[in-house]
Amino acid sequence: MELRIQKADLVAGISTVSRAVPSKTTMSILECIMIDAVDGDIKLIANDMELGIETIIGGEIVTAGKIAVNAGIFSNIIRKLPDNEVKIVTEGEKISITCENSEFHILGRSGEDFSYLPVVEKNSEIKLSQYTLKEMITRTIFSVSSNESSGMMTGELLEVKENDVRMVALDGHRISIRKVTLDEAYGNFKVIISGKTLLEISRILSGDTTKVCSIYFTGRHILFEFDSTRVVSRLIEGTYYNIDSMLSNSYMATVKVNRQKMLDCIDRATLLVREEDKKPIIVMIRDGSMELKINTSIGSMDEVIDIEKNGEDMDIGFNPKFVIDALRAVDDDEVTMYLVSPKAPCFIRNDIGEEKPEGQEYCYLILPINFVTVD
Amino acid sequence: MELRIQKADLVAGISTVSRAVPSKTTMSILECIMIDAVDGDIKLIANDMELGIETIIGGEIVTAGKIAVNAGIFSNIIRKLPDNEVKIVTEGEKISITCENSEFHILGRSGEDFSYLPVVEKNSEIKLSQYTLKEMITRTIFSVSSNESSGMMTGELLEVKENDVRMVALDGHRISIRKVTLDEAYGNFKVIISGKTLLEISRILSGDTTKVCSIYFTGRHILFEFDSTRVVSRLIEGTYYNIDSMLSNSYMATVKVNRQKMLDCIDRATLLVREEDKKPIIVMIRDGSMELKINTSIGSMDEVIDIEKNGEDMDIGFNPKFVIDALRAVDDDEVTMYLVSPKAPCFIRNDIGEEKPEGQEYCYLILPINFVTVD
Repeated sequence: MELRIQKADLVAGISTVSRAVPSKTTMSILECIMIDAVDGDIKLIANDMELGIETIIGGEIVTAGKIAVNAGIFSNIIRKLPDNEVKIVTEGEKISITCENSEFHILGRSGEDFSYLPVVEKNSEIKLSQYTLKEMITRTIFSVSSNESSGMMTGELLEVKENDVRMVALDGHRISIRKVTLDEAYGNFKVIISGKTLLEISRILSGDTTKVCSIYFTGRHILFEFDSTRVVSRLIEGTYYNIDSMLSNSYMATVKVNRQKMLDCIDRATLLVREEDKKPIIVMIRDGSMELKINTSIGSMDEVIDIEKNGEDMDIGFNPKFVIDALRAVDDDEVTMYLVSPKAPCFIRNDIGEEKPEGQEYCYLILPINFVTVD
Repeated sequence: MELRIQKADLVAGISTVSRAVPSKTTMSILECIMIDAVDGDIKLIANDMELGIETIIGGEIVTAGKIAVNAGIFSNIIRKLPDNEVKIVTEGEKISITCENSEFHILGRSGEDFSYLPVVEKNSEIKLSQYTLKEMITRTIFSVSSNESSGMMTGELLEVKENDVRMVALDGHRISIRKVTLDEAYGNFKVIISGKTLLEISRILSGDTTKVCSIYFTGRHILFEFDSTRVVSRLIEGTYYNIDSMLSNSYMATVKVNRQKMLDCIDRATLLVREEDKKPIIVMIRDGSMELKINTSIGSMDEVIDIEKNGEDMDIGFNPKFVIDALRAVDDDEVTMYLVSPKAPCFIRNDIGEEKPEGQEYCYLILPINFVTVD
């Protein structure tokens, strides 16, 4: 095989497929990137068996061929080369990489044990802008459970109902939901996608509003196609939780608050919380103002924020991190909190109320924490 | 005590003195910053017993007093406050910190067991610009030994000979020297300053060419005074190595090379070196060109760079990291290497030769490594 590729193209391609190279594995072939220039395209492929990424890069194929190469070593070498054309030549498993006056020799692998991406039939399809998909992922993914043994909670629900696409993540203490309405209708599907896959995809997506990402499902796999990249992931099996039954639409109080002020305040409060502490932030809602209090082994904090309140007074406690995550996932200057009781979930949402929101609809549910009343 | 201080002033002061707060200690008083507003100035002080830093910050003293407070907690709280005036009020060991609508309560300490900075008599003095001092430190400190048991090698020699100030760091494999000539003559001194102290000072110094740093010595301590900050450090005792006897002025070859090209090349070569490997980079010096080779368990690299050579051909091996450190410590586009033999130190220096360099004189000595010839 002999290829000539601009360094920048090679770096971009490696950086895309490297997202599917596991950081720790006992199977050394999984640490490899396959360079496949057999069929007229230069493809880079990596596959950790759960997530596989393939991308086509520009360049000249002087002699066709393919070789697998350790991703870390290959990536490090290419990144450090001068910004110029890189020549990659293989002779058996020997690889020489030449750029300007610099020549590297490393060993590759024939890659007979390398797993290519599974074929996903393009029956069920939806199309989203890269921007929309990236936003939906990054604004829900923090609610995916990080406990690997928690099954479906490690994934997100992607639900398509005609024109509506909804993504849902939950970890047992909170639920994060984003919804968009598309121009086209796509039928009805529900799949559960691994959180790890979504995180990696969100990092590769350009976030461009004019570029499209096509998504295809089969019963077992999901395929994302965008730019010259294909990402295939195994789906999580099972029937996802019945989310709609958890979303109440009746409430005892609504609170309109400046998002950044509340965020800054709770952010300060968390300074006093040690990992093991799990101290709640106590929110005391009154007419026109909200008092936030925290009291830990390090010290105490007390702050008052102006609000617009409708309904009853209420004292409610939260894990401060969950409130911070939800407030950070929103762009609005003002958010509305919907409260039922100190023992019932609190909602930060824009999908109910008089006006239809522009852009994405969101609904963040946070379970409260019991607390002993202070002073 | 009651103080009113602008948040930005407080943050700057805390960040300066925090450099003398040890990250790990069993003595909790060492983790404290002393806020001393007894004598009309607001002083922040930290002292880990080897290095002490005191800085005066602006603000209003409503009621005089002093208190010691955990540096980490205090720093975190202050940094997260709104950008406005901060009110610090103590009542016994209770501290309340108020800024806008936010109020924190933490516990301080009377600080009776806090060690103030030792008094350093201002007999022997030198004055340097902050820029010059910062440069001399950052461009030699990497050669200080990181092995804490290696005594004087963990420090740097500061040598004053009338108008000449020289700083020297060595670790047994290399020596780094920087020298400046000052307008004023200051007599003759030699002290050994802890590398840790120098590193922290280099981080606090503004690097401003118009601002002065005064340095005072006694037999046991050194005092740096700059801006409104004083840094006191215990000196390392002993007689430093006789450096001048190690610097040869006769050589068999000189090589003029583009610094960045050589740096990039060796930087690429180190990709192939694993921590435990200790493989040398082999430099093959010929008329008009220098070939750099490395051969490790990961692969091999070969690169040719144009040079101007005088004297004999030579093949010499180096620890690539040491060459990189020296080349990075220099700004010149072209550097000159002075070589004696493959078994003798190589010098990268501008302090010999026809022309007197502008700015600082430098001399970097690197011991070669034996190698088995490859080809």
